Amino acid sequence: MTVSLTIDIETIRLAHERIRPYVHLTPVLTSNLLNELAGAQLFFKAEHLQRVGAFKMRGAVNVVFSLDPTEAENGVATHSSGNHGAALSCAAGLRGIPAFIVVPANANQVKKDAIRSYGGKIIECESTLAARQKTLNEVVAETHALFVPPYDDAGIICGQGTAALELLDAVPDLDSLITPVGGGGLLAGSATAAKGLGETGVYGAEPEQADDAYRSFKSGVRVTEHTPETMADGLQTTLGALNFEIVREKVDDILLVSETEIVSAMRLIWTRMKQVVEPSSAVTLAAVLRNPDTFRNKKVGLILTGGNVDLDHLPF
Amino acid sequence: MTVSLTIDIETIRLAHERIRPYVHLTPVLTSNLLNELAGAQLFFKAEHLQRVGAFKMRGAVNVVFSLDPTEAENGVATHSSGNHGAALSCAAGLRGIPAFIVVPANANQVKKDAIRSYGGKIIECESTLAARQKTLNEVVAETHALFVPPYDDAGIICGQGTAALELLDAVPDLDSLITPVGGGGLLAGSATAAKGLGETGVYGAEPEQADDAYRSFKSGVRVTEHTPETMADGLQTTLGALNFEIVREKVDDILLVSETEIVSAMRLIWTRMKQVVEPSSAVTLAAVLRNPDTFRNKKVGLILTGGNVDLDHLPF
Repeated sequence: MTVSLTIDIETIRLAHERIRPYVHLTPVLTSNLLNELAGAQLFFKAEHLQRVGAFKMRGAVNVVFSLDPTEAENGVATHSSGNHGAALSCAAGLRGIPAFIVVPANANQVKKDAIRSYGGKIIECESTLAARQKTLNEVVAETHALFVPPYDDAGIICGQGTAALELLDAVPDLDSLITPVGGGGLLAGSATAAKGLGETGVYGAEPEQADDAYRSFKSGVRVTEHTPETMADGLQTTLGALNFEIVREKVDDILLVSETEIVSAMRLIWTRMKQVVEPSSAVTLAAVLRNPDTFRNKKVGLILTGGNVDLDHLPF
Repeated sequence: MTVSLTIDIETIRLAHERIRPYVHLTPVLTSNLLNELAGAQLFFKAEHLQRVGAFKMRGAVNVVFSLDPTEAENGVATHSSGNHGAALSCAAGLRGIPAFIVVPANANQVKKDAIRSYGGKIIECESTLAARQKTLNEVVAETHALFVPPYDDAGIICGQGTAALELLDAVPDLDSLITPVGGGGLLAGSATAAKGLGETGVYGAEPEQADDAYRSFKSGVRVTEHTPETMADGLQTTLGALNFEIVREKVDDILLVSETEIVSAMRLIWTRMKQVVEPSSAVTLAAVLRNPDTFRNKKVGLILTGGNVDLDHLPF
């Protein structure tokens, strides 16, 4: 791959130039009601309004459009039942190359339909991690497509960092920036952007019931196995290796939230801001509301990461 | 009341000047996916992002801030279990006068809470029209508050017309403009604005199961009694007298939609645009999708009227 292994503010700026023709410059939303409730000034970067309905489009486009023609010609492949699969399909479609997406057979029909609607080819497998990996290896061996990891990758991290770059461009004097943390692509990219631009405090928000990043951050040893039980389905994965190194170095703290707090924050975003966001997107507001002393009277940036929910299975 | 009885583009412009400090200039949203689906270019005026979550704020603010100090001092009153009650409460609060809102005892708790949260005083009554009117008369007699009707009023109509004014300012070359029709405040105001500015075609969208405006429009005789059975709870009322006169003169057609079409359009707005809107807001998109020949390749403005839904009672 031609994507630089360097991850810094310059490579994020380059990623931003590269992806700009293919992604939306999403708006920054505010709500007086939520500001009052939080005792802080909140600035929500609306990545649920991004193409494919999630910030994942940024990383996928960055990697796909970084490939030289020879690397690109056989297409790209990944395993994902979620937004990365849809984003990679859409990015590949924009470049005119195939995308092969390995998906557990029991995955959400809505997400499978989304992948197909963007032109991705779905290859089903059993729902174990081992089966996913095996099937992906077979697909890559057969198609010679290039594997694009969902988060543990410099090109992905730089792509995801462009959301924070845009938010800090719109609101340069943010005191704090908070993003959800799953695999850590967004958090690592955001921290790199924010610390490269200034002194904004950077926080990750994570469900208590999927607290591997929290435990990794606090102990200094990356947790690679856990049994998440959270409705925030985008945050079930463990922190990537590269992501962990960046998070350790640049992130100020990881804040935990309960499932009840996630539902309650999600309700607030739906009813007060009238925005359809995934449970994974609500962890940041939940963390702000749980830690009033940390954020009181501060200007706080929050990234609303995605809006792909199944209306037939809502948590309320 | 000092609100002019004239209803034309000039009084709408004056209303706009009057309300501007107190309402949001809401954005105009677009969606490539919905454009493809409709075969038209759709421009959604996002009044669900208006203060109190509905366009009703415009009319209420216009009337409340048109009152001279003597008229205003005893406050305002209305009967409403919906957005007009919340909007009047909020507008009165901004002016620092009381608002008395007559609400059926069995009304939605969420809506009652909203009225209270804006400082409105709730007076409960039985859920018949007669009980509503009787209670309102008693409240007005006792408090000397000024009755502010929900739609059959020049000040309200001019206030509601400002949403179309802003939309046509943002997208001056709209071929068509379509709004939901209940009491007809928004439709009459929008038609007055659009026809005062140019030749934009103006349409009302109405549930088949609350089709009084359709029947009134087609027969030329205003229907004043009907038994609506629609989930679009903002559209259950019959067309006002003043509203009917304007609709008859300036509106090009009224288009009906089924309950199934409303749910389907609402799902599209939620899942594709990621916007939380009420069923009443979805009738316009439903009407566009049902009448592809009318809107094909046209630039169509749609007003998303409100976003106050009860998440515990969704139609999906």
